[in-house]
Amino acid sequence: MTAEQFADRHIGPGPDDERRMLDTVGYASIDELMDAAIPEVIRWHGRLDLPPPASEPDALAELRALAARNTVAVSMIGLGYHGTHTPAVIRRNVLENPAWYTAYTPYQPEISQGRLEALLNFQTMVSDLTGLATANASMLDEGTAAAEAMTLARRASKAGSRVYVVDADALPQTIAVLAGRAEPLGIEVRVLDLDVEPLPAEFFGLHLQYPGASGAVRDHAPLVQAAHAAGALVTVAADLLALTLLRPPGEIGADIAAGTTQRFGVPMGFGGPHAGYLAVRAGLERMLPGRLVGVSRDAAGAAAYRLALQTREQHIRREKATSNICTAQVLLAVMAGMYAVYHGPDGLREIAARTHRMAARLAAGLRAGGVEVTDVAFFDTVTARVPGRAAQVVAEARRRGVNLRLVDADRVGVSCDETTTVEQVAVVWAAFGVDGVDGQVPEAVPAALARTSDFLTHPVFRTHRSETSMLRYLRRLADFDYALDRGMIPLGSCTMKLNATTEMEPVSWAEFANIHPLAPAEQTAGYRELVGQLEEWLAEVTGYDAVSVQPNAGSQGELAGLLAIRAWHRSRGERHRDVCLIPSSAHGTNAASAVMAGMRVVVVGCDADGNVDLVDLDAKIDAHRDTLAAIMVTYPSTHGVYETGIAQLCAKVHDAGGQVYVDGANLNALVGFARPGRFGADVSHLNLHKTFCIPHGGGGPGVGPVAVRAHLAPFLPGDPAGAPVDGRPAIAAARYGSAGILPIPWAYLRMMGADGLARATGVAVLAANYVAARLREHFPVLYAGNKGLVAHECILDLRPVTKATGVSVDDVAKRLIDYGFHAPTMSFPVAGTLMVEPTESEDLAELDRFCDAMIAIRAEIDKVGSGEWPAGDNPLANAPHTAAMVGGDDWPHPYPRSVGAWPAGVDREGKYWPPVRRVDGGYGDRNLVCSCPSPQAYES
Amino acid sequence: MTAEQFADRHIGPGPDDERRMLDTVGYASIDELMDAAIPEVIRWHGRLDLPPPASEPDALAELRALAARNTVAVSMIGLGYHGTHTPAVIRRNVLENPAWYTAYTPYQPEISQGRLEALLNFQTMVSDLTGLATANASMLDEGTAAAEAMTLARRASKAGSRVYVVDADALPQTIAVLAGRAEPLGIEVRVLDLDVEPLPAEFFGLHLQYPGASGAVRDHAPLVQAAHAAGALVTVAADLLALTLLRPPGEIGADIAAGTTQRFGVPMGFGGPHAGYLAVRAGLERMLPGRLVGVSRDAAGAAAYRLALQTREQHIRREKATSNICTAQVLLAVMAGMYAVYHGPDGLREIAARTHRMAARLAAGLRAGGVEVTDVAFFDTVTARVPGRAAQVVAEARRRGVNLRLVDADRVGVSCDETTTVEQVAVVWAAFGVDGVDGQVPEAVPAALARTSDFLTHPVFRTHRSETSMLRYLRRLADFDYALDRGMIPLGSCTMKLNATTEMEPVSWAEFANIHPLAPAEQTAGYRELVGQLEEWLAEVTGYDAVSVQPNAGSQGELAGLLAIRAWHRSRGERHRDVCLIPSSAHGTNAASAVMAGMRVVVVGCDADGNVDLVDLDAKIDAHRDTLAAIMVTYPSTHGVYETGIAQLCAKVHDAGGQVYVDGANLNALVGFARPGRFGADVSHLNLHKTFCIPHGGGGPGVGPVAVRAHLAPFLPGDPAGAPVDGRPAIAAARYGSAGILPIPWAYLRMMGADGLARATGVAVLAANYVAARLREHFPVLYAGNKGLVAHECILDLRPVTKATGVSVDDVAKRLIDYGFHAPTMSFPVAGTLMVEPTESEDLAELDRFCDAMIAIRAEIDKVGSGEWPAGDNPLANAPHTAAMVGGDDWPHPYPRSVGAWPAGVDREGKYWPPVRRVDGGYGDRNLVCSCPSPQAYES
Repeated sequence: MTAEQFADRHIGPGPDDERRMLDTVGYASIDELMDAAIPEVIRWHGRLDLPPPASEPDALAELRALAARNTVAVSMIGLGYHGTHTPAVIRRNVLENPAWYTAYTPYQPEISQGRLEALLNFQTMVSDLTGLATANASMLDEGTAAAEAMTLARRASKAGSRVYVVDADALPQTIAVLAGRAEPLGIEVRVLDLDVEPLPAEFFGLHLQYPGASGAVRDHAPLVQAAHAAGALVTVAADLLALTLLRPPGEIGADIAAGTTQRFGVPMGFGGPHAGYLAVRAGLERMLPGRLVGVSRDAAGAAAYRLALQTREQHIRREKATSNICTAQVLLAVMAGMYAVYHGPDGLREIAARTHRMAARLAAGLRAGGVEVTDVAFFDTVTARVPGRAAQVVAEARRRGVNLRLVDADRVGVSCDETTTVEQVAVVWAAFGVDGVDGQVPEAVPAALARTSDFLTHPVFRTHRSETSMLRYLRRLADFDYALDRGMIPLGSCTMKLNATTEMEPVSWAEFANIHPLAPAEQTAGYRELVGQLEEWLAEVTGYDAVSVQPNAGSQGELAGLLAIRAWHRSRGERHRDVCLIPSSAHGTNAASAVMAGMRVVVVGCDADGNVDLVDLDAKIDAHRDTLAAIMVTYPSTHGVYETGIAQLCAKVHDAGGQVYVDGANLNALVGFARPGRFGADVSHLNLHKTFCIPHGGGGPGVGPVAVRAHLAPFLPGDPAGAPVDGRPAIAAARYGSAGILPIPWAYLRMMGADGLARATGVAVLAANYVAARLREHFPVLYAGNKGLVAHECILDLRPVTKATGVSVDDVAKRLIDYGFHAPTMSFPVAGTLMVEPTESEDLAELDRFCDAMIAIRAEIDKVGSGEWPAGDNPLANAPHTAAMVGGDDWPHPYPRSVGAWPAGVDREGKYWPPVRRVDGGYGDRNLVCSCPSPQAYES
Repeated sequence: MTAEQFADRHIGPGPDDERRMLDTVGYASIDELMDAAIPEVIRWHGRLDLPPPASEPDALAELRALAARNTVAVSMIGLGYHGTHTPAVIRRNVLENPAWYTAYTPYQPEISQGRLEALLNFQTMVSDLTGLATANASMLDEGTAAAEAMTLARRASKAGSRVYVVDADALPQTIAVLAGRAEPLGIEVRVLDLDVEPLPAEFFGLHLQYPGASGAVRDHAPLVQAAHAAGALVTVAADLLALTLLRPPGEIGADIAAGTTQRFGVPMGFGGPHAGYLAVRAGLERMLPGRLVGVSRDAAGAAAYRLALQTREQHIRREKATSNICTAQVLLAVMAGMYAVYHGPDGLREIAARTHRMAARLAAGLRAGGVEVTDVAFFDTVTARVPGRAAQVVAEARRRGVNLRLVDADRVGVSCDETTTVEQVAVVWAAFGVDGVDGQVPEAVPAALARTSDFLTHPVFRTHRSETSMLRYLRRLADFDYALDRGMIPLGSCTMKLNATTEMEPVSWAEFANIHPLAPAEQTAGYRELVGQLEEWLAEVTGYDAVSVQPNAGSQGELAGLLAIRAWHRSRGERHRDVCLIPSSAHGTNAASAVMAGMRVVVVGCDADGNVDLVDLDAKIDAHRDTLAAIMVTYPSTHGVYETGIAQLCAKVHDAGGQVYVDGANLNALVGFARPGRFGADVSHLNLHKTFCIPHGGGGPGVGPVAVRAHLAPFLPGDPAGAPVDGRPAIAAARYGSAGILPIPWAYLRMMGADGLARATGVAVLAANYVAARLREHFPVLYAGNKGLVAHECILDLRPVTKATGVSVDDVAKRLIDYGFHAPTMSFPVAGTLMVEPTESEDLAELDRFCDAMIAIRAEIDKVGSGEWPAGDNPLANAPHTAAMVGGDDWPHPYPRSVGAWPAGVDREGKYWPPVRRVDGGYGDRNLVCSCPSPQAYES
């Protein structure tokens, strides 16, 4: 394959396909098409300065060489990142299985029941272990989960205070993230050593770590009572493994629990991705941010899962949202939940007990050797006091292949986990210069804090003990779902393109997977080089001067970018600049992020063509000239159009002293043809899970690097583990965010090269225009730019047919399932429309299959419109059709079964069957159930 | 997981399940059950001397350490093993996907359409590339394929000669295997340098290598004509990659082509497994050994695939069979076929051209440096003459990380492949001490031998160019099939148990995958230690003194064992001992193997209880006392019973001077409880793909080590690459056979340990007795041993119900598909029965699901019997039901659709749907089509 171009495998249409598509669209070449589509004012005619493309084997070889420059040491650093054994059956059949990792966020519940069930397991696991009523479907990491808990506490607290008290024994990176989030919101984070310092008189919330970063296990109940007495809410950041042995937060009265599920089988990955968690007591569930899976029912009355309470999310509430989170860490949450399914309560308890015994043994040996261990009660971590000798002990252990935590000059932290062996404990003893002990040692979990309540009582956690059973459960759930491995997912603004195996394979390698984020620099040379190259290449692609990969989701990238703008204004003495202009067509996250960055949102209207209304822009700039901080625009616009006014827009905002934020969501329409950092923008976030091939994982992980021009570079995210630097808040808990999946975009860029990337962009735009051309006469294409061309996606307007026939955009989306497709994006950015983004990875056969299906559906709609089929009982209204429905003994519908199940062109043998009929979302929201229902619940 | 026992994951039933199963069977403990089931005369009360069990992570760590002791060098040794790039999408989605690797041989075509299509692609690829009419679904390796070609030629030739002429430029290991196979059959292999030596006057066949082992490309047409004139058939052992550029064997008149498809994306694996191939001209297809996939039609008249011409196979023809082959290398054939699907004809041609250019460049550089290159016409391999300097050149290249072939003191072979780079060519030049050349070099494929015909014209080879398209094709085919990842495959005598992920993962590691079988010893220390340990552990488990892992299928192990017996007799001057006693209940392979080992088969009858009739045994021994060579018995018997007469049987045969061969097919009923090598047997073959967890791969790879007592150890298989040793014929082409998958049984033994293995046996026996106990009242259990107990499998006798109702064993097997099961073994060893082997890996829930299904089916049979349902139109006769059938607009059947598709207990949401209705095998045999049919063929 040395001579073989990866781009030819990544890009779906071959030369013949391309020719036919160009003919349909009416252009002679992709260059000609792009010349016509992209406004010359932003068009870049250069060639990206990237290394020549590597073949797949060569890229893997280069990644092997980078991996070899990382050292997998025994990690006993702790601080929220622990060694763990990923059960091989889960690694292979979830993490390495495209059926799981290429799935999209489960907005279409009928074709997502597998991952929804897996997420419900996760929620149940978190809820059971924390002892709280409701857990969400995961957070980005522990630090951001704690930050969301802080803002949730503020909303829920009746205390008028702006003070948030944080346990000094909290994880340092959590404190850093809390501080970064608090400042723009006007919250004062007060870090107190609660062993000695009293709580203040007024505060709205209290953050406790359980066990502490030091390892100490404290009885937090008195603090919880004191906080409640002050009207404050209490968040306990708890270690879920410890909670199998310790009284859970819910049982000591905590309102919120936050943390990470990393040690439940998810590799450390140099900091991520892992699934953070957030759980709340009864009464707070409707204030819970993030994704929440709930149980509802389908059209036949059967239990069915779907995302619950979506109306509280940022895409609905925009600047009124209280969080900008719009993804979770689904793939990792699935893994963690499955780890609990596979081990069950007894297995988890046994793992925790073994981990604890190692720590107890370690402590006993240190004490026997005369080393002071600071706490008598601990779970897995002990802090040892060796005055003046800490660095020496840490160095000695490192020499022997074990990483310890250097707390300060006098103290060393040592953390055990399920991978810890007696031999490793002996190495630690040796590093301390003690002989250790043999035999039984006393345990160190105080009886008063021992857990007495049961957990994971649902059968799913007690059934799959054998690998055979586990394997089949994973397959069963995977088979429920529709992912990219089955067919096209033409979701506008989501860029569901190929996640190549070669890009994915390195993620599983131990040298990338098993690295602690605080591992010493000499052990992470390969990772740091990879990150450095990736940041450099991303800067080249976007035309910016500096990039930080820290933000572990697009939303976090937005926040980071806006905070950089904010800090820049402040650095220039312009603290008053706090207005953020946002076009009405913007994604809701933009507005939510602006609010989180301490800005006021001012909406700019759009004109009839869907473009930013430059007249209204002038008016808004005039109205806020002195306070203008920024404008956030998406380019191409969320309407899928290359707006010609973009350069003017940038100039106007700059002239008024504002900064220009270009949301990088649609970068797949620009790469190689235009560079935001060079056409007027100051900052962008990128979605590596869109344009740069990180798989969506069923709703995460995502990575949202922030890219800035040079003047903003000093304000990129700071190191959460380092000393705080003014204007450089930590955005995520780990310095490089979700470093563990950065080999994916690295490999993509490395294998595509400059020409491959540009060709991908051209084919993506060609494909969207091809779909628009084929479907225009059947459904109006809502917006277009130059010469009637769309960018990389097109909006099909269903409002006229809905008005005429009553057939809704929902009906069409569900009917597409019968035809073997995931629906396009529904009702965004315009209600009543479908937005189609085919991407460059779909070949012509698949594009045509989609167009043919849409055309056939149009004919079906006409039969409803003409009255041939009744409005309430037709293949569209009844879609999707399940096998149980079309194979049922009764068929009361006025159309044949075959029309329901196998409309024209649908594969008879290989048809994908959804497991449930159309899901009633409202029912589930009214009857909220967010943990695994009892098996009896399915009997209805 | 340090403390976690892998055995608890491997063994399905937990303690509660076990208790309930024991209650049903009527024993207090597994020990008590085993005491009752196994005759005391063979019962072993020791404990296997194996290392204490390792956890899964520890076993992987140990395998990593072994892997690290192998060195992945650049391999330019050639000789039929080449570097290749496995496309990552194929590696992940075939080789690493349980949906492919846990499937069984496609005897049940309705639930095997995916792999049958993949095999048809393989056959089409071989047929197209070789230019011959019919190719089979793969052979074990090139050496054995050549051996089968030899015997086929002998059968087909009208020449009365016993002489088989073999080109001296054939692969050395092929010559070794041919010699080993020929001798017991009385064939004389005559190796001739056909460049200078004339063909003999009489011979029945001619074996040519194309290109030769030296790399030389010769025009073989004159030799083919000469051979045909002599009445001989011609086999051309051809390199398929070369055939994209060279005139194929079929176009120069060859009758047979044989070879390997390893370089089509299958890693070298230190010798295997890879898919060998065998193709024949029109007229020979019904003599073709091995598996053959053909096109037939289903009950609805749609095209459907199935195994063709099964009546010619060993399990039908027994001692009249002409080959003992009963498996193929399906998983590897699927990979090779998919490599062709992914690259297509243009891609393959480009790979071949690039490979050739590298060789041409290499040769030009050598010549420019004054080194003689022996041949002017070559494809990928050049032989260089460096008088007296060959060892020095090879050593110098090795020092630089490149392995070359040391032909003799004066000659060095250098072979290029798709992974060869210009840098590597430069290293070779340096090793020869020449400077090399720059720029264009002349090609070395003579125009007269250039291929002009098209190939791979079927659309499947021209459609899947993008990874997205390939991924979906692989998923589509995988979804057609039923494998262990969906549910139980209770195939008697096949031991379909867990193939654990931890066992499978190392197979993909480069340090195991990318090692040439002739790599220098210092590069293979890890492999050799692994093989040594495995052989030692297998000897311990079986009680034998020596083991060879060389045989790459059970059938080859049988042959190896019988040849060892034969050689032993000869070594004692008892050449006349040539009678092999075989019980009438034996697997057909036994008899076929005996014939191949030059023995005469004498059948021993069974008594009414299914046991070997000891009276008849006495009679047969008496009749053949002086010529008795051996008896082959399976233990427990193929009836699934621990025969109590086994010790007596061994003694009787030994007393008559014969040797006892115990077929190890049923070893899963013995491990830890009885050891054939200690209860009277002299030799066994083991099926590592049964008892020791190598997955069946859809019909291969298998590994069939031969285990012997000390007196037979001198007669274990010889090294095919070494000098021939009398009495030690090579059985397979590579010294360690399918070494690449030996990490699987190694990991199984390493993780189970002595107690885990014994417990697995006990639970396997318990499970079989549990099924027998639950089903006995519904279907008679045909045979039983001590106290009415079966061993690890039980035979359900359907003959009475068939007689009473007309419902056949086939009907029940197909109906089980509707219930979500793979059928048990049908009509073996007794026609009209089903043999059920649940194995230890199925938990009680799955065992009960199966028993419930069988009981429900019995009730359905009764409805046919009672006339409630007509004989020709009922759920059994119409099984399996496809989705298209039950969702069809018409339903002319006298039972509801739901009864057809979702009989009691069947999962409504997760139901497995077969893609075709019942397949008509006879139609396909009468209308033989063994390559991809045109798309139009499906339209009927």
